[in-house]
Amino acid sequence: MKTVSENRCYGGTQGVYSHASTATGGEMTFGLFLPEEAQLGEVPVLWYLSGLTCTHENAMTKAGAQGWCAEQGIALVFPDTSPRGDDVADDEAYDLGKGAGFYVNATQDPWKPHFKMWDYICDELPALLGAEFAVDLERQSITGHSMGGHGALTIAMANPGRFKSVSAFAPIANPTKSDWGRKQLGAYLGADESTWAKHDASLQMRDVGFDGPVLIDQGSADQFLQLLKPETLAEAMAARRQEGLFRMQKGYDHSYFFMSSFMEDHVTFAAEALYA
Amino acid sequence: MKTVSENRCYGGTQGVYSHASTATGGEMTFGLFLPEEAQLGEVPVLWYLSGLTCTHENAMTKAGAQGWCAEQGIALVFPDTSPRGDDVADDEAYDLGKGAGFYVNATQDPWKPHFKMWDYICDELPALLGAEFAVDLERQSITGHSMGGHGALTIAMANPGRFKSVSAFAPIANPTKSDWGRKQLGAYLGADESTWAKHDASLQMRDVGFDGPVLIDQGSADQFLQLLKPETLAEAMAARRQEGLFRMQKGYDHSYFFMSSFMEDHVTFAAEALYA
Repeated sequence: MKTVSENRCYGGTQGVYSHASTATGGEMTFGLFLPEEAQLGEVPVLWYLSGLTCTHENAMTKAGAQGWCAEQGIALVFPDTSPRGDDVADDEAYDLGKGAGFYVNATQDPWKPHFKMWDYICDELPALLGAEFAVDLERQSITGHSMGGHGALTIAMANPGRFKSVSAFAPIANPTKSDWGRKQLGAYLGADESTWAKHDASLQMRDVGFDGPVLIDQGSADQFLQLLKPETLAEAMAARRQEGLFRMQKGYDHSYFFMSSFMEDHVTFAAEALYA
Repeated sequence: MKTVSENRCYGGTQGVYSHASTATGGEMTFGLFLPEEAQLGEVPVLWYLSGLTCTHENAMTKAGAQGWCAEQGIALVFPDTSPRGDDVADDEAYDLGKGAGFYVNATQDPWKPHFKMWDYICDELPALLGAEFAVDLERQSITGHSMGGHGALTIAMANPGRFKSVSAFAPIANPTKSDWGRKQLGAYLGADESTWAKHDASLQMRDVGFDGPVLIDQGSADQFLQLLKPETLAEAMAARRQEGLFRMQKGYDHSYFFMSSFMEDHVTFAAEALYA
């Protein structure tokens, strides 16, 4: 693992690190905020999964989350959204290939050699964090925005017992029924839609649910409402009697201005579960 | 004036607007955060002046200031740092020309037709804000980062009675004695150094001071300490018995991670003066 940069931030450290990844077969970069408390011992960790076109850096610089994590004594990890490098397949569309890993393990060419973001987030990066930093893997929560909200919800539900809470900002909530999903799941996983279901938060919510509290924030003026399909997730949460809350925030759109406006709530929500 | 964008943010609105500027002889763009309270009446306004290479956008997306301003019911304006456009003179160096207006009125060619950022910030933009938005020009404070800290301090001291407080993050504190200053003041104002003094915060602090409280934050691990010369300003503040405080923040550098770490303090500092 290499240290790309470290900046003092809210009494702790905002670091950027890179490492050779077995899962994705190439170099991966991630951001990690460690609060001051990490100098004394292991701290709980919150995962933040980013949306389409993002790298590890966007939320790290624009979401305004570090201050709230510092206040709560929580580490915050910002993974990248896809494999990177000249030998990695890509597409000219912004929503397929690099920056658009969709948190799945691709089984189809040309994607399958590197697009293993599911394994990277579920297995490889947690092990690396546990080995290299003072984070307590017994106390993890996860959140994300848009495609990252989709990743947070599907990964949390597929790994019962791992995360104390899950939240999402404007998640892609029903990708098997959306142009933000059908194209990508078809490309990465192939035409057999039975392999897609694991990667649809609404379907998983209906069938499995989450073993802890769930918080969803969605802006009512989001320009992508037709692609996100929040109503399907809201219905599934209610039908399952899922512990948690779904909030429709009047007038907010899909931007970081929306996300930063409610970041304190999401960090506090995670902290209450992590310190319960 | 044209609306470039408006995003709901912390219950208020983060807008971006552009307008034809008389001062700079071209189109100028600025960001303005208006808290929810601005729907009911005029709110106090905090100016945020940015540093080298920045536009109106950097601090708007990365400084994490809107939440604190929302909490205090204060508007926050993010001006650009120079004139823009194809007919505006520039230099290949990052620290001269576009993105590096240094908050002066240029008197020298090729800069003098457009580089009138002093007039733009002191006169034209406040008048526009007062005419177009629910901001109370009787209650203004000002802050800034690096070159913008220089601008905030020099503009505040040159306009007694206008600003209730001034603060700065890692300001260029003594430009007449620094490579961040001598080159630019020479280019924009010419070789007669007597015209430079108005644009040196340490000299103005020694000679004039500020008629309100002053807050300076400086990181001890700032990579530009030799160019910023904070010690000269600290000495001048103490020698003048200037009301205020100068804080050396251990381990922090020059980045937005430093700034966002202490943004709450600067907004609270302004609010205490604005609501006094």
